[in-house]
Amino acid sequence: MDNAAGANGGEGLAAEAARLADRARELHDAVATFISRSSADEQSLRHRALAIDSDICKLRCSVETSLKSAAVDATVVAKVDEELNKARYALNDDHAAFLLPNKAQARFLKMFLGPVNVRATRKEVQLKVKEEYNNYRDRTAILFLLFPSILLILRSWIWEGCLPTLPFQLYQAWLLFLYTSLALRENILRENGSDIRPWWIYHHYCAISMALISLTWEIKGQPDCTYKQRGVQLFLAWAIMQGVAMLLQNRYQRQRLYTRIALGKAKRMDVVWGETAGERGQLLLLCPILFTLQGFEAYVGMLLFRVALVDAASEWQAIVCGILLIVMAVANFVNTMQTLMEKSRAKARVKRSKSKWDMGH
Amino acid sequence: MDNAAGANGGEGLAAEAARLADRARELHDAVATFISRSSADEQSLRHRALAIDSDICKLRCSVETSLKSAAVDATVVAKVDEELNKARYALNDDHAAFLLPNKAQARFLKMFLGPVNVRATRKEVQLKVKEEYNNYRDRTAILFLLFPSILLILRSWIWEGCLPTLPFQLYQAWLLFLYTSLALRENILRENGSDIRPWWIYHHYCAISMALISLTWEIKGQPDCTYKQRGVQLFLAWAIMQGVAMLLQNRYQRQRLYTRIALGKAKRMDVVWGETAGERGQLLLLCPILFTLQGFEAYVGMLLFRVALVDAASEWQAIVCGILLIVMAVANFVNTMQTLMEKSRAKARVKRSKSKWDMGH
Repeated sequence: MDNAAGANGGEGLAAEAARLADRARELHDAVATFISRSSADEQSLRHRALAIDSDICKLRCSVETSLKSAAVDATVVAKVDEELNKARYALNDDHAAFLLPNKAQARFLKMFLGPVNVRATRKEVQLKVKEEYNNYRDRTAILFLLFPSILLILRSWIWEGCLPTLPFQLYQAWLLFLYTSLALRENILRENGSDIRPWWIYHHYCAISMALISLTWEIKGQPDCTYKQRGVQLFLAWAIMQGVAMLLQNRYQRQRLYTRIALGKAKRMDVVWGETAGERGQLLLLCPILFTLQGFEAYVGMLLFRVALVDAASEWQAIVCGILLIVMAVANFVNTMQTLMEKSRAKARVKRSKSKWDMGH
Repeated sequence: MDNAAGANGGEGLAAEAARLADRARELHDAVATFISRSSADEQSLRHRALAIDSDICKLRCSVETSLKSAAVDATVVAKVDEELNKARYALNDDHAAFLLPNKAQARFLKMFLGPVNVRATRKEVQLKVKEEYNNYRDRTAILFLLFPSILLILRSWIWEGCLPTLPFQLYQAWLLFLYTSLALRENILRENGSDIRPWWIYHHYCAISMALISLTWEIKGQPDCTYKQRGVQLFLAWAIMQGVAMLLQNRYQRQRLYTRIALGKAKRMDVVWGETAGERGQLLLLCPILFTLQGFEAYVGMLLFRVALVDAASEWQAIVCGILLIVMAVANFVNTMQTLMEKSRAKARVKRSKSKWDMGH
């Protein structure tokens, strides 16, 4: 009886296992069909996208030559332009953008990851990447604020005004990691259709070099610690200000992005790291802070540079870091100004069309 | 006449632009349909995969309890096991594997890239990633060999036996980049189904720490350069040996992988970084080299450690690098031994079943 039950149970189990293996095989075949069908579909969509893309380019060319030979007048050109922009917009939308070949995958990504695809097809996934990036920036902004604060506090409390090398190097190692991961993440966002300004990514490359150089820099205390470490100390103070500015910017950027999404003006993948313009009131707060930061950054750079030049026994690291800081300050300033100017130009355009409309009525 | 032609040309252009805009809109809608349909299909396939996965687990459990209560006999269990393995194999195949949730995305990837998907669905893409990884290893192996060779040659030719800090730090910065990119790439390969041994990735994390620490290490020449830099010099010599071994390994691994693919034994995503076993003849060459390397690595570690302990004015970097080298040497040795033992066990199994078969006949 027991044996028979055992045999029955055993047969039942074996049959169930065989059924499971069949189901798994069926699933396997279904997956293979799914993959081959969807990649064929994707391929044909891609062909269509490429054809439209090249037709847009051709038409644009022939319009330009017609315009030069005065074969068409301006109103026609405006109309053609409008239609072509519509077509371009439909092609470059978040949905279809993955079909067109990438504007050359970023070298930085290729260097670290190899030729791996980091573009998400589905919008939800793209948005998840973006959201996570925003959260990451919030988290790091706090660390960005805390790390140098602790160093400066310990410096005056415990280390009697003379920063030891190791904690400073730990901080620099963290900065190295932070800027590398930011550069990787922003390159990934770019692949996913974000129109982040290239400079903010180059800025991270500069910051990576600076952290790497600082790591090799055994900052010395002798003979005159206060004088020798003045540049380092100011750098830490600047980093604290930067942390505060980052927190403000993050809040502001998010708000602005949500407003723009609500207004339907922005694709949600837009990232505007750093210094850009937006709501009036907050801008009045942000702009002075940003310009002060940039001025301070240049000042710290100059100071490092000067100390290094005056001091005969100076380290090359001070000179290079000084130059890098000055370069970053100037480029940050230029980019902020460009963004502000673009913004005011856009505003003027809106005003002009509004007044035209008013005159028309 | 000219005007009329202009108007005609203009109208033609405008009509063509409108047609293009329509085509782009149509494509846009087709893409939206394609994405929503394929993600729905994927979702339903995923549900089926998850259901089968959980059924396999359940059945395995009930077989185990039946076996404990002696309700089934061993032959039934063996049969059930075989079927379940078939099912599991069909599920975990390269095709279907992307459906099952990831065994927790590697923390390292998440740290650097955020929660971005790096799994390729299509097999060709996965294979491209793998091929590129192999090429990358070939290229880096040559640099791995050249860099320390040049340093050692310059040391005896130009620097009169005393290595300056900067070139050594440049080398370490390159190592830092190399190991970071290798760790990222191998984690990506793992996500794509490669069964690379976890230690080889941990090894890279150790190597990353060591490069970072070496960057902060201003190796000194005074007072006795030959004695003080003995560890560093041996480290460079070891790196050259390592480069040669890497080149040999790469050749060997590739050959072996192609053989295994041809035999249908391996999924093509398998990576076997470093010390594993294979064809008899080449193994006789590789094994002694690998064991010598590991012994030498431990010796360099011990030497760094000893110099640091004996010398009162020693740097902490020497101690930590020494310990790291010893840890890596021991773990490398253990992993090589494990692989060799697994291999001989597999061989014994083949022999046993062959002799059984012979006896049966």
